[in-house]
Amino acid sequence: GRFLKPVRLTLRAAGYWDLVESDIEARLKRAVEIRPPLEVYQPMHHLVFSAPKNLASALCVAACEAVGGQRGDAVTAAAALHLMHVAAITHENLLVLPEKHAHSSYDSNIQLLTADALIPLGFEMLAGQESGLGCGCDDVAGRVVRVIVEITRAIGSQGVVHRQYNEYVSRHERAEEGKFCACGAACGAILGGGDDEEVEKLRRCGRYMGMMNETSSYGDLIASGNEKAELRNLALKELSGFDEMKIERISCLLDSYASGQISMDLESVCSG
Amino acid sequence: GRFLKPVRLTLRAAGYWDLVESDIEARLKRAVEIRPPLEVYQPMHHLVFSAPKNLASALCVAACEAVGGQRGDAVTAAAALHLMHVAAITHENLLVLPEKHAHSSYDSNIQLLTADALIPLGFEMLAGQESGLGCGCDDVAGRVVRVIVEITRAIGSQGVVHRQYNEYVSRHERAEEGKFCACGAACGAILGGGDDEEVEKLRRCGRYMGMMNETSSYGDLIASGNEKAELRNLALKELSGFDEMKIERISCLLDSYASGQISMDLESVCSG
Repeated sequence: GRFLKPVRLTLRAAGYWDLVESDIEARLKRAVEIRPPLEVYQPMHHLVFSAPKNLASALCVAACEAVGGQRGDAVTAAAALHLMHVAAITHENLLVLPEKHAHSSYDSNIQLLTADALIPLGFEMLAGQESGLGCGCDDVAGRVVRVIVEITRAIGSQGVVHRQYNEYVSRHERAEEGKFCACGAACGAILGGGDDEEVEKLRRCGRYMGMMNETSSYGDLIASGNEKAELRNLALKELSGFDEMKIERISCLLDSYASGQISMDLESVCSG
Repeated sequence: GRFLKPVRLTLRAAGYWDLVESDIEARLKRAVEIRPPLEVYQPMHHLVFSAPKNLASALCVAACEAVGGQRGDAVTAAAALHLMHVAAITHENLLVLPEKHAHSSYDSNIQLLTADALIPLGFEMLAGQESGLGCGCDDVAGRVVRVIVEITRAIGSQGVVHRQYNEYVSRHERAEEGKFCACGAACGAILGGGDDEEVEKLRRCGRYMGMMNETSSYGDLIASGNEKAELRNLALKELSGFDEMKIERISCLLDSYASGQISMDLESVCSG
């Protein structure tokens, strides 16, 4: 998926999606405001706000609500996931791959450094949110630490970076977007106070949803229509057993996503 | 400092230093063993183990002991600091600066990705050490979260990355190595259970020690002989009030460091 696809939403999903996105955006605006030194924060601001939204962030918030948590408890983590995602695709655009051409308003050195700054900023937001979590639970720091481990695994040598190696070194077809979405859902469930079973169910649900949108390095969707329908069923199955009211939003995201009404491109930043 | 300088130690400092370094190396060996996929772990292993040691890692361990903590409680954080440091200098070598020439066994794409993998790995180690801390204190996760915030600030847009921007964009002379060493000492003090005053004293002590070794972008030491002596006195002053037995190691590091008997190059990896 190198090109930004149109985002269309059903009315119901759109309302929820807008709410979530405006919360995440407000959080990002606080974290990434343009301030001195401008040579650092201007390109950072540009990259962060020109990037398309990603499903992992949305799943993080929806999964938090699915286990009975407050939306606000997952928004910082969702914003941090967005930063990690922007950092990954910015560096990916710097890789010298013959079939890719990175176009950006900033030169490659600035892109390299900006992405380097985004990753620690994301972790700082995660670690710093301790006092901000409204859940009033006993072990907020413990939840935050678990979420940090989740995200390091999803973006590091076991996750996004590994996929990039594969694309670069051996041209594997399969992009591992499912992992990043699985991570987003698991993080939300942890922050919302879900038990281990709930976390794992929502992680799998997120993985199936991410897999629906996986693209080859040429930007083509990998899943066929039949496979997509199957992934949707698998994702739905993971949601059975949850309180129906609470999963309304995540299943409505899933519906819109499966029907192609929400379609997010995870790799189009910088190349527009 | 682009070139590896010789490391000479007094016998007493050498003994302590060797102990600390072998602990850190053992921890790194567990984290970065060569395993499949080899295209990921081979360059990672090479970069991590060919990098010179850095003062921030040593200070982390020494500061932990200075506040009465066990050496083992700071070793994972010290190893994580080493990974962050390797990631930063690897990316720095990728910057297209006319006066720099990066020589490495790996091409620039692999270096880019490897450093990208090291940063989350470092955070994963930090966050994952929760169960491994032997201090038996109440709020291990809280300490870990504080350490993560410390490190994100030292390496992100307020720290190392900002220095790299400066070097790249406006050619500032002053390398901000003091910040990274300040962070290392603060992390050790937090993990060792130091109170806020102790953490801040050790942070300043680390900053002065780091400043002794700051180099211009051309590799020259910035501090003159007189300035070095002054920095040493300032660092020593911060240590007054601590238990003399406990600060024996950190002050012996300081002595050897000030006299040039330990000299670490923080930027020579990849360019050897």
